Amino acid sequence: MEEMRVVEVKRDILAGNDEKADAFRAMLAERSTFFADIMASPGAGKTTLLLALIKKLRERGCELDRMGVIEADLESMVDALKIKEAGVTSVELNTKGVCHVEMGMVERAFSFFENRAFDYLFLENIGNLVCPSEFDTGAHCRVMLLSVPEGYDKVYKYPPMFAAVEALIVTKCDYLSLNPDFDMAALKRQAAVLNSGIKVFVTSARTGEGLDELTTWFEGRRHALLD
Amino acid sequence: MEEMRVVEVKRDILAGNDEKADAFRAMLAERSTFFADIMASPGAGKTTLLLALIKKLRERGCELDRMGVIEADLESMVDALKIKEAGVTSVELNTKGVCHVEMGMVERAFSFFENRAFDYLFLENIGNLVCPSEFDTGAHCRVMLLSVPEGYDKVYKYPPMFAAVEALIVTKCDYLSLNPDFDMAALKRQAAVLNSGIKVFVTSARTGEGLDELTTWFEGRRHALLD
Repeated sequence: MEEMRVVEVKRDILAGNDEKADAFRAMLAERSTFFADIMASPGAGKTTLLLALIKKLRERGCELDRMGVIEADLESMVDALKIKEAGVTSVELNTKGVCHVEMGMVERAFSFFENRAFDYLFLENIGNLVCPSEFDTGAHCRVMLLSVPEGYDKVYKYPPMFAAVEALIVTKCDYLSLNPDFDMAALKRQAAVLNSGIKVFVTSARTGEGLDELTTWFEGRRHALLD
Repeated sequence: MEEMRVVEVKRDILAGNDEKADAFRAMLAERSTFFADIMASPGAGKTTLLLALIKKLRERGCELDRMGVIEADLESMVDALKIKEAGVTSVELNTKGVCHVEMGMVERAFSFFENRAFDYLFLENIGNLVCPSEFDTGAHCRVMLLSVPEGYDKVYKYPPMFAAVEALIVTKCDYLSLNPDFDMAALKRQAAVLNSGIKVFVTSARTGEGLDELTTWFEGRRHALLD
């Protein structure tokens, strides 16, 4: 009975959320802003990868002030400060303990940018491999990170996340030598079974491995939006 | 308005959950069963630590059939199979995508043990550093794991979890050499600011570091229950 009530309320909220998300996505597309939502477990390396990606995009000619970040956290400003220190335009989205980001929060956070024009807008979602996948954040593209130390056997354990994303970015690959059991082929195979179109990138922010390929992919996704 | 409705429904459910949890805790205490809830991010090493702990308890004289595990996962049986392969009595708790474990699930899972008597009962909660902390699972003791590769800066980012537990078990300490930035002293200091009574264990299931101390602590917690 209690569970039923929650399910019904949740369904209403998700429907409202989806409508807002579609409108937000269309509004950003008109402004030529490509919006990507980055999801992962705590400690998978979201902030570090984001900073590495922004650096690459900059090297390829995207001005720093054409990139913005919405930095979501339950309570603190730990990651938001790292982004600010790197000189990136960002807004801190404090969910006050809520385990995911939904559209009301995205809209409110975005309003703080005061109509600045971006080529790329990134959302660093809450560190959580479960709940964020359920809520459309209005992004044109959703990606997830999985770090090598977490282990390769996560597809069957957290399927909604693997099903929700366009790309799986394997991070901290400089740890592979310490993880002889990490079966990259099995990870790719299992991810493809669940999500046949999923693109897999093997990266390390420490060594730079895979970052060029990933940056090219993001550029391509943005160009696809503009066409 | 939508958020309000969710909060109200959630409050009802949490109140009902707490009552059930107290009754379950008392029932287990009468049977001299000590129940511990193990929480962490995905890939922090919950299953591996649990198997190492069970092995230690066995070496110290606890019979294998006096230990039981409730193994929670969103959908798969990946971890439940590992536990079964080790010969441990276990029940798979499949939450069907729900991001945490609550009492109805614990009671149902426990019924499958058919009144077997345990000295130790363990719950491996869903891999999620956010939601599980909110729901009392009827355990006598809640602990969390944080693995070294996740980074030390998690206390301020995931405070409800750090506030909810008696012990923080730092895992994968054999990775410390690869993580010169991991500030163990800062982690301990920040955890103690948030939760003054928190006990911190520094462990590695690979090297065995810290496992004796941790096992002694669990034994002590059980004895405190029996007194």
